Order: sequence, then C-alpha cells, then structure tokens
Amino acid sequence: MNQNYIIPNEWSIIEEGFDKDRVMSSESLFSIGNGAMGQRANFEETYSGPTFQGSYIAGVYYPDKTRVGWWKNGYPEYFAKVLNAPSWIGINVIINNEILDLNTCDTVSDFKRELNMKEGWLSRSFVATLKNGIQVEVKSIRFLSLDLDELGAINYSVKVLNDDATVVFEPYLDGGITNEDSNWDDKFWDILSVTREDEMAFIQAKTMKTGFSTCTFMQSTFKMNDEDLQIAPNVSQSSTKISFSYSANLSQGDTFSITKYGGYTVDRNHDKYELVTAAKNVLRKAQDYGFTALLEQQKNAWSKIWDMADITISGDIEAQQGIRFNIFHLNQTYLGTDPTLNIGPKGFTGEKYGGSTYWDTEAYCLPFYMATKNQSVARNLLEYRYHHLDKAIENAEKLGFNSGAALYPMVTMNGEECHNEWEITFQEIHRNGAIAFAIFNYYRYTGDFSYIPEMGLEVLIGIARFWNKRATYSTAKDKYVILGVTGPNEYENNINNNWYTNYIAKWCLEYTMEMIAKVKSDYPSDFTRIQEKAKISDNELADWKNVADAMYFPYHEGLNIYLQQDGFLDKELITVADLPEDQRPINQKWSWDRILRSPYIKQADTLQGFYFFEDHFSTEELERHFDFYEPFTVHESSLSPCVHSIQASKLNRMEQAYTFYLRTSRLDLDDYNHEVHEGLHITSMAGTWMSIVEGFGGMRIKNDQLTFEPRIPKNWDAYSFKVNFRNQIVNVKVNQQKTVFELEGDADLTIKVNDKDITISPDELVVV
Amino acid sequence: MNQNYIIPNEWSIIEEGFDKDRVMSSESLFSIGNGAMGQRANFEETYSGPTFQGSYIAGVYYPDKTRVGWWKNGYPEYFAKVLNAPSWIGINVIINNEILDLNTCDTVSDFKRELNMKEGWLSRSFVATLKNGIQVEVKSIRFLSLDLDELGAINYSVKVLNDDATVVFEPYLDGGITNEDSNWDDKFWDILSVTREDEMAFIQAKTMKTGFSTCTFMQSTFKMNDEDLQIAPNVSQSSTKISFSYSANLSQGDTFSITKYGGYTVDRNHDKYELVTAAKNVLRKAQDYGFTALLEQQKNAWSKIWDMADITISGDIEAQQGIRFNIFHLNQTYLGTDPTLNIGPKGFTGEKYGGSTYWDTEAYCLPFYMATKNQSVARNLLEYRYHHLDKAIENAEKLGFNSGAALYPMVTMNGEECHNEWEITFQEIHRNGAIAFAIFNYYRYTGDFSYIPEMGLEVLIGIARFWNKRATYSTAKDKYVILGVTGPNEYENNINNNWYTNYIAKWCLEYTMEMIAKVKSDYPSDFTRIQEKAKISDNELADWKNVADAMYFPYHEGLNIYLQQDGFLDKELITVADLPEDQRPINQKWSWDRILRSPYIKQADTLQGFYFFEDHFSTEELERHFDFYEPFTVHESSLSPCVHSIQASKLNRMEQAYTFYLRTSRLDLDDYNHEVHEGLHITSMAGTWMSIVEGFGGMRIKNDQLTFEPRIPKNWDAYSFKVNFRNQIVNVKVNQQKTVFELEGDADLTIKVNDKDITISPDELVVV
Repeated sequence: MNQNYIIPNEWSIIEEGFDKDRVMSSESLFSIGNGAMGQRANFEETYSGPTFQGSYIAGVYYPDKTRVGWWKNGYPEYFAKVLNAPSWIGINVIINNEILDLNTCDTVSDFKRELNMKEGWLSRSFVATLKNGIQVEVKSIRFLSLDLDELGAINYSVKVLNDDATVVFEPYLDGGITNEDSNWDDKFWDILSVTREDEMAFIQAKTMKTGFSTCTFMQSTFKMNDEDLQIAPNVSQSSTKISFSYSANLSQGDTFSITKYGGYTVDRNHDKYELVTAAKNVLRKAQDYGFTALLEQQKNAWSKIWDMADITISGDIEAQQGIRFNIFHLNQTYLGTDPTLNIGPKGFTGEKYGGSTYWDTEAYCLPFYMATKNQSVARNLLEYRYHHLDKAIENAEKLGFNSGAALYPMVTMNGEECHNEWEITFQEIHRNGAIAFAIFNYYRYTGDFSYIPEMGLEVLIGIARFWNKRATYSTAKDKYVILGVTGPNEYENNINNNWYTNYIAKWCLEYTMEMIAKVKSDYPSDFTRIQEKAKISDNELADWKNVADAMYFPYHEGLNIYLQQDGFLDKELITVADLPEDQRPINQKWSWDRILRSPYIKQADTLQGFYFFEDHFSTEELERHFDFYEPFTVHESSLSPCVHSIQASKLNRMEQAYTFYLRTSRLDLDDYNHEVHEGLHITSMAGTWMSIVEGFGGMRIKNDQLTFEPRIPKNWDAYSFKVNFRNQIVNVKVNQQKTVFELEGDADLTIKVNDKDITISPDELVVV
Repeated sequence: MNQNYIIPNEWSIIEEGFDKDRVMSSESLFSIGNGAMGQRANFEETYSGPTFQGSYIAGVYYPDKTRVGWWKNGYPEYFAKVLNAPSWIGINVIINNEILDLNTCDTVSDFKRELNMKEGWLSRSFVATLKNGIQVEVKSIRFLSLDLDELGAINYSVKVLNDDATVVFEPYLDGGITNEDSNWDDKFWDILSVTREDEMAFIQAKTMKTGFSTCTFMQSTFKMNDEDLQIAPNVSQSSTKISFSYSANLSQGDTFSITKYGGYTVDRNHDKYELVTAAKNVLRKAQDYGFTALLEQQKNAWSKIWDMADITISGDIEAQQGIRFNIFHLNQTYLGTDPTLNIGPKGFTGEKYGGSTYWDTEAYCLPFYMATKNQSVARNLLEYRYHHLDKAIENAEKLGFNSGAALYPMVTMNGEECHNEWEITFQEIHRNGAIAFAIFNYYRYTGDFSYIPEMGLEVLIGIARFWNKRATYSTAKDKYVILGVTGPNEYENNINNNWYTNYIAKWCLEYTMEMIAKVKSDYPSDFTRIQEKAKISDNELADWKNVADAMYFPYHEGLNIYLQQDGFLDKELITVADLPEDQRPINQKWSWDRILRSPYIKQADTLQGFYFFEDHFSTEELERHFDFYEPFTVHESSLSPCVHSIQASKLNRMEQAYTFYLRTSRLDLDDYNHEVHEGLHITSMAGTWMSIVEGFGGMRIKNDQLTFEPRIPKNWDAYSFKVNFRNQIVNVKVNQQKTVFELEGDADLTIKVNDKDITISPDELVVV
C-alpha cells in the first residue's frame, strides 16, 4: 500500500488535516454519484493548487480521433472519451475582497472531509485564516439525489470568527471545461446558450459529434444565522459561464450560508428542446422539498440499498470500511434501472479508459448485481449485449470473419468498438467468452431460462461461430490452435494458445451446442424464429464439435500444469518476491517490451479460468496452478487480487486470502497501484464483494442449489452478507465458531453447507 | 503491377495524355531533388483536382506529438515528421481573366511529361482550351541545380493559338502550407517575415519546436517570342504569401514566357540571420549564369554521376528504364557530401514514415554508395552512427539496459528514437545487427580498417553489450533465447527466437570479440583509449562467448530448415499462390491480427540472414530455405524482392530472378504495392542495384578479392555496370556469350570469376 491517511471508520471515509499532496487522491476517493451523474470531490470554492476537476453524466461521451501515423486496418474510427461535463458545483467565496483559496490561505486548520456511505453525502469543514487576517470556519455538505437523479444539492456556510467581514458567495455554472486526458487542447462541447430566469441559471450545451444535449442548471437560497435571507444578486455572464454574486455584511460570529441546487437534464430522458423546462421542474421540486427533506430522502434511499447489499465485518474496522467503500461506489455508479447504461471502469471518478462497457461487466459485476438487486437488473445487463449483437457481427466482419460470427468490442459505448491498441482491440478476444459465460451464470443463478430462447441463444451462436473460425488447424500439432491473442493477462501480447482463451473458446462451442439442443427441444417456436436468421446446419455443428474436441492446450508434463501460453517456460522465471521493490509497479517503471518478455502476470489468467470452470478441476489441480502462477503475479490490474483471494479461500489458505482481500477492498483507499488520483477502480469493486461472498463464504450454485463452504479470516470476529437467490433472501452470518442462516421469503429453501443439505424456513435461524 | 502508363524509354520517364486519376502517382514518379532539397512534380500553375503538394528540405523535420491514450513507458516523446516546406514553384497563369487549371479547362490535349534522367530535368507540355475559348500551348521545364544546391529554375511559356489574349503570370511564394499527413490541422511553421526587394521576394520561416530557419526565395524574368521583356509587376502580399503579377497582351501565335528562379537557404549552411543575404547571392548567381547555362551545368553534373553509376541493359527497355530510375532517384536523394544527412525512405517524394534514417541505410544503401562513389561517402554514413552512439546508449537505458549497451533507434533524425509503435520501436532490434554488419561490410569492401579502431569498435561494443543482455537463458531449452522481438518481417510482432535476430546477435558478439582482439594487438593506443571508456573485462567477454555459443535457433528436423521463429509451423500454411488476388496487398485488405497470424512474410527475413551470411550456408541449404519461405512471401515491403532476386540468381533460377528484378526496379513505375501516390521507395532502390550487381553479376568480396559469377536473364542481350573497388574502377559487361572486364586504375587487379583467378590490367579488355 502507498497511503494510509484515510481514517478507519465503519461507515464513513474520513480525512483529517489538509495536505495539498493528497487533494487529487481525495478528489477520487470522496467522489459522489447517483447512477445518472457523478463528480469528483472537487472543492466548491476556488482552489488554485493541483486538482483534477471532473463532473460526468452517464452515457455522455465523445468520439475522439484515433487516426495516427501508425494506423492499422480494422481500427475503429474513434476512441470513446468519458467527457468532463459543465460544472455546477462551483461557489467562489470572497471575504473582504480576498478570494477564499485553501492553496493560498495563511493557515488551514481543523480540515475534515467525510464521505458518509450509510446516508450518501459528502461533507467538509475547516478553519482558514486569509492573508487579510480574517479567520473563517467553513462547513459544506453535498449529495447527488438518488430519488431525483437530475438533482444535486450543496449547503455551504461561512462563519467569521475574529472580526466583522463582508462575505460574497458567487455560485456559478461553468461550461468552459476541458478534459484532464485531452492531448490536443480539443474542445468537446458546443455551448448553445447561457441563460437565466430570475435567480435560476442554465447552460445548454451539446457534445460535438455525438450531439448529446444537456442543460446544466443552478439556483441558490441564503441564510444568515439560520434565518432566510433575500439578497439581490449581481449577474455576470460570458459565452460559457454565468455567475450570481450575493454579498452580505457579517459581524464577528455570524454564519452566512448558501444552499445551491444544481444538476443536469439530458436528452436521454427529455426532448432536447425541453431541457430548460425540465430543469425548472427539478429546481421547483428541490425548492418545494428543501435541503433538509431532500437529505432525509437521501438517507432513506441509501438505507434501502444497504438493507440488501450491506456486508458487515466485526473485529476488523479497515476490512469493514473497505467492503462498504466498494459496495457504496458500485451503487453510486450503476443502479440497474436504465438498460442503455453500463458500468464504466472508473465510474464517475475519472476519465482514464474510454467507453463504459468492458468484459468487467460480465466477469465481475454481474454476480454482485444478481445477488444484491432485483433479477431484472442482471437481465438488463444481459439484454444490453443482445442489443449490440448486430454491431458485434459487423465488428467481426472488419476482422475478416463472416457468416454471422460475432466479436463483441473490448470497449464500447453503443456496441461499436471504440478502443485501438491492436493487441487489445483485435487480440483480447477472450472477452467474447465472458459474455457467453455470463449467460450461463445468469441462468445458473437466477433459474430464469427465458433469456436464452428469447435473446441469449442468438448471442451464443454469434460467439460460437467466431471461435469456430478463429481457431485454426495446426498440422504440426494435429490440433486446433488459437494464434495471436492477448489473454486476461495483458502483460503478454500476440501470444499463441493462451490456455484461458482456448479453454473458454472450447466451452463456448460446447455450451452453445447444448443450448441449441435445449431450445430446439423445449422452445420450438423460438428455435424456428432463431433458425430463420441463423441457419445453423448439421455440418456447421459438426465442425464446431471437431474444433471443440481437438482444441489444443499447452501443458507441461513435468510440472503437471497448463501453461499460460506457448513458450511461457522460456522466460527467466524470477518470482515477484525476487523483484526489487523499486521496480514496481512494473507498468510505471518498465518499458513495454521488458514487461512482455518478463514472466510477470498482470492479473489472474489461468487462475481466472480455474475460477470460471472450477468444477472442471480438482482441488489438487487448483493448488498446483495456484502455486505455480501466484508467485509471478504482480496484480497490477485491479481485477486480479479478488480472484486470487477466492482461490486462496478455496485452498483454505486464509492468511493469503485475507491479504488479497485487503488488497482488493482497499486497493484505492490505500492506493496499492500508485494511481488513485486518476480515479477509482469501480468494476473490480464487485470482485471485492465476490471475495467475501464466494471466497470466504464459499457461495456457489451447484445443480440449481445454493451452497456454502464458510470460512473466516482468523482476525475477524464475524461477518455477514445477504444474497437474493431466486427471489428468496438468504442472510448468512459467519463467526469463528459457526454459521447462521436466516431466510426472508415465502417457502422453505434447501441449501448445501459444507456438502450437507440444510433446509431453512422463513424467519427461522439455522445454525451450522 | 497496377499501372502501365509510363512509356518505356532508355533515359526518360515519360507520360503522355492527361488523366486526372494519375496526377498524384505522377507527382511522385516525376519528383526531382538535388540532395539538399526536393519536390513532388506538382504543376506550376493552379490545379484544383486531387493533388499532393510537397516540397522538402534535407534535414528539416518537426517533432510531432506522440502522446496518446495508450502511451507506453519508454516511448519517445516525438515522431519526426518530414515537413512540407514553403513552396516556391507556383506560377498562377491567368488568360483573359480566367485562371489556367487543367482540372477545369474545356479540353486538354498533347499532354506530355518527361523526367530526363540523363540530364536531370523535368518538362511538361500541353495544349488546353479554356472555358473562355482561348486555346494555349504550354511548355515548362524545371530542375534543381546540382551545382548550386540552393537553387531551382523553371522556364514556363504560354503560346496563344487561336486568338489574341491577355496573359498574366503570377509567380508566388507560399508559406501557408500544411502536411499531407497532418492529423490535427497542426501548423508546423512560424512565418517570420514576408519581404521583397525590387522583384526578389523572400519568406523567412522557422519550424516550430525544432527551430530550423529557412528563407524561401524567388525572382523572375520574362520574354516575348524570345525577346527580353521588362514588365512592372503588381505586388500582392499577405502574412504567409507574396506574389508578383506580370501582364502582357499577346497576339495570336505569340509566346510569353517566364523564367523563375527559386529555392531555399537554410541555417544548416548559413548564419540564420544571413539567410536573405545568402538568398540574394544565389539569385544573383542565377541571373549571371542564366537559364541556358545553368541547364548546361546540370547536364554536366549528371553526366559525371552517370559515368560512374550507370547500369546499361540492352534488349529490355523496361528493365533499362527501371534501373536508371532507381539510380537516378538515389542520387537525387543523397549525394554523400553532408555527413549530417542520411537517406530517408521516401526521400523528397512524400511524407510517409518520419525520420530520415532506418536500417535501410546500412543494409541496402551502403553497398550502392560504396561501389558508385568515393569511399568517403560510405565512411560518412558509418560516422553518422558513431556520432549517435551516446544517444543509442541512452535509448537502451530507457528499455532497462545499462553498462554501455547501445540500441540504435529504428527511426531517427538526430540519434534519438522518433517512432512509436511498441512492436517496432522496442522490438525490431535486429536493426542493431545491420549497423554492425555495415562496419564489417565497409571494411570487407573498401579495405579501410581505420574506421574500426578510430570509431567503429566503440559502436560494436555497445551493440554487443546490448545483445548479451537482451538474450536470456531458458532453463527449459538450456539455451539462450531472444524473446519478444519483431524481425525484418514486420508481419510478425512480439515473437520469440526470430532466427534472423538470433543469428545476427550471435554474429555481432563473435565479430566484436574478434575486432577487440585485432585492435588490441594491432592498434594498442586506440585500444587503450577505447578501454578507458568501455572497461571491458575478461569476465564480460567470457559472458559474451557463453551467450554466442549457446544461442538457440528454431529448427525443424523433418523439413531441415530453420524456422523463422518459434511456432511458425502452427500457422495455416496456405501459400501466396492460393491467396485470392482480391485479398492483396494484405496490408490494405486485412486487419492487423489477421496478418499476424497468417504465414505471410512481408519481406525477406530468414533469407535476409542467408544473404548477409551466405558463406555460412551451403547452396543446398539456401535452396531448401528459399523453397520453403518464398511461397509465403508477399513482398509488401519494398526491401523484399531485391533479396529474393539475388538469392534466385545464386540458385541460377534466372526466370524467377528476373521477375523479382522487374518487381524491385519497377516497383514504383508500375505501382506493385498500390501506394505510389504516397511517394517513392527510395532506400529499396539500392536493393535494385544490388539485384543486378550482386544478383546477376554475382559480385562478392571474398578474402579481400573482388569476385564475380556473372549470369544474365535470357531475354537480355547484355548489361554492364561499374564498381569502384578500393579506388580502382572495374567495368563489367555481360552478354549471353561472355563477360568482358575492363579496369580504370593504376595497377593490375586480380579478380575471381566463376572461381578462377583472372588478372586485369588498366585499359585492357579481358574476356571470360
């Protein structure tokens, strides 16, 4: 870990003391979001020190130019940039004509930030002495409403401590924003209008090229020492910005406060010509409820989320804080209500990585949303890919595959590939497997087969056709090989026979054949409809079977392990333990060629396959592969430690499992990978949830049955979690002595615990 | 081949008839240059159809931004762009108020272009009828002076054929140019001043970032029907452009002509504050000589070049035209007089590929310049790399190598790497080998050992140290392996144990050890000086020997061939003959992943090694490898067919050798690779020369002796070439019956012809 300033607390993320070097990290960690929009924890008042300003709107992106000198055929035309949106949170604070700026104040004391995860708000307080000698106490609290998801609210107060003073609040909207990751000083927004009506202000803006229309809005009210105050503002306006200036004369000890409402209305929800009207409606509602009632609603909304999604840990406050931080941010990013949205790897906390949808969604996020939300949320995630099937078929055509082969994009916003490193875009094709696996996993978990005949089988056929063509016959090996791929371990590129890729390809072919047979026999009318489009012949199926049956897997007889890829053993096999600390993270210290020819594994690769297909392998096989690969794994992907934690739990290596758990759950809080200032790792947070529920709890679905093999780290007193299994809620509480199960539901449920059937009845505790 | 409009001619490139679709190809083919500057064959008058405007100055480049989202550690900060320079050739022609523009004329007839390679000039003539009905006959001739290499001259005349007319010539300078390959509408030039003095005009401009200062200049004179004419111009001037407008009234049958002088003075040759003064001097000289005398000088200068460099072919006019086209463009690009310049792959004919120096220089160009110029030219090319040794050491450090290991850049302008595709920049490390081989080859050919103790040994030590570290020990193979490389065949990336790379690495280590021993014993004071810096220990040398002795080479026992790399035989081995024609060139039709996993070879790779080290292998071995690899080779690199031609000659497969000869010599004339509009392939033109001299002529240096095994394609009557071997000029003339040798020199020379010693004396014909 590389930082430890976050104060351990069960329900809150807390920072005390002001340190300029921490500002950008804290801006990431204290980010807030409500599924529809989100923002980094930038200060409301001016801050002239190093900062990464970011406000983001779900689904709004920009197609950045990708054409460079070393262009390659098949590259997508654009890279989908997560766009920094016009900002509505700003409030300049001017005290006796001096601007309040924590970077230039004489002194700052009693600085505290809190992100209250239980109730869903962010607060900040400090005492500052300005250069002009005026000392003020400042308190702010803000949140993005879950109930009114176009609305955010800020309460910001200034108390003058040592003298009388004139205090000016200057709330503003700013459309003159750029992207942190912009390389060519490009502008991404057309500002269409900057208008006001009374004390409401609006900036209408449209993204260039993609043409997403938005209205950013604000309105403020004021109090002096808890009394409402009416002040006539001075208005200042430019082509990209509007601000209202409210001035008040304070006597020593007075508190002047502003409540600012703001947010975005967007054409995803409204007619693009009605965005100002919609914004007025939001502001009217906000004024009607008032800040206190809105905050109360916020607490209630979060309470409902926590009721289902919370995981408690007792006896280890850092572990507790870690898991809640993960669950909190997942819910801030994606609530599953809009089937056109997905789960971006940085959520609303940064700009790195374009696009919103990666294989992370299927491989990591789906289990979390399946177990902690209504089943429709998981189905929405699956349907998202069904709606992109045609584009996946087009994508495969660009790479020379036809006859309905589908290659889902590595990164997408709307189904089109929007990333272009050839070794990723063209070669990290294992993503197709995760999408098929998610269909299997959804059915396994929810028992809802309907998605497969209605939509999923078409997706599976497209994917199977891709694998069938992508595998080629090697005369030398008399086997089918898959050449030129990048596996989950992105520290290898253009390798041959990545075991994970070959394995999931074979599985996809076999599973699709199985599902075709099932739909054909059990859902004949669906099958007829699908067959009209797909025109699968017996010959084609025979060809799939040939490829699946004769798939090649690199294996070393002496070591008795599958090799991550052909030639892995030719590397200099120096373990991570022998790699000097000052060389890490290698992705920040080493050139790419050095990384590629090293044995270091960015993230679980062979072990990811053992995770997906654990029933296919014995515990002894798992142990051999874990012992071989773990020493070379640097976990420089956020998606890695969770899988290793689960596998260590399965091998009953609880100390190791716990270490990986801390690494996944506090990856950002403790900044293991030296990069938290860029934003949080949202999708891997679902992996943290898995490392408790599937790792420690040992939860699986086997033969339609919920099963557990509970374990507990030795330094924990107890932990508990809940899962929604086929609309019955199972509460699990594990301590060092026993496990207690409790059911919220209508009917009895027979589960398996450590290989024994246990029947639990609604609202009755079962102790194992 | 993809075009055949160039009219066969022994000494000229000729196009007849105007075809808008050919304009951009012809702009490349008819390019002119004089080593210091060059230009595409753009029309002088306005042309509104598709055109690629390009004027280039030797050594002037721009460091384009390379930072993109998928940045990787170790990437260079910039990509050296070949910069389009301010243009001086433009002459707007206005006839009765209508602009002459071949794209909009009513009719164009009798269009003819000629690039006279013997005399070094470009001419054009046509008859055009304008929309206003005036018919004119236009003739132009232009050249870039070899003697005054800052000067170009144009003679342009308009004869009105069918009526009286007012004709205006508007010669101009234009600094408002952009690059054809610019992606972000960047500007690369700061225009410092646009000035005039009398009828001379000057644009002073500086490249952004690199700060190269240039002055573009012009001055014109006029004639009416061969009588000098003084006309007062109207001047028009903007911040980037200046034009003079000269008007004359012509009676039917009158000819109005302009002689325009122009060019560049640059701070490579002058103080940057003296560029205008220098330009005035050039213009004064031009006026003093006059167009006719300058053209006469030009003919003489080219005559001297041809006297040494010409290759004659009788009985095959297309083959004759092809070889002269290659020799002509090589000399237009690089004359060897300035040791800071090098040979860019597109010369002055286009912008593709940044940087001026590739391994092409050492591997392909050096033999041509060694044999057709004074020995100092080849030595200049070697010294160029010596001067970049420190930067090559820094470059290796960026990739994690230290202790003096040197990795020369893949592409450079000043010694710094300036290209960034990781698979090239970091992995195409075989380039280091070609630089060492050139040292060996220079000594072998010239007999001048002095470069090695004075400079070359330090270069060799840096290179050997790199190979020693870059090879790693594979426990699995009990051999040294070189993982993660791109070989000469760039249609494979990140491969393990590229045979060519491993072979040249081993050779570099052994050759360097040999040279260290020789310098130590024969040049002790040089050795002491070098050893003070290099500090080579016996342990280090022992380590090199270990690596060289135990280098791994992939080999297939059944086929009895070295494999291009590990795993080559796992590919679907479908030969090029079975690849549908509509799929080619694959680099324009296929996505990169598809190319990578195919067996198709872009350019000679294993066979390139057999070319460099032919003494190490038997003819039978060569034949086996040729038969295996040639069927998979698509020759989509210009550097490929020449090597295959040489190897086919060696195997006495003259029909195949001839086919490859045509492909290399007429690659651009017949546009084999569908890309001539982007510019010519300059460096491979030296390969064309090799395919005659080393291929058909079978010239080699063996044991300090010049040897030949002459062969001749069956459709040729005869061919001849000259080589400067250690300051003696050997003339070789081969026909179907015999070979005739003639020596220009002071002393007898014993050469070997078909393994027999033959002594030739000055100016005496020897017939074999």
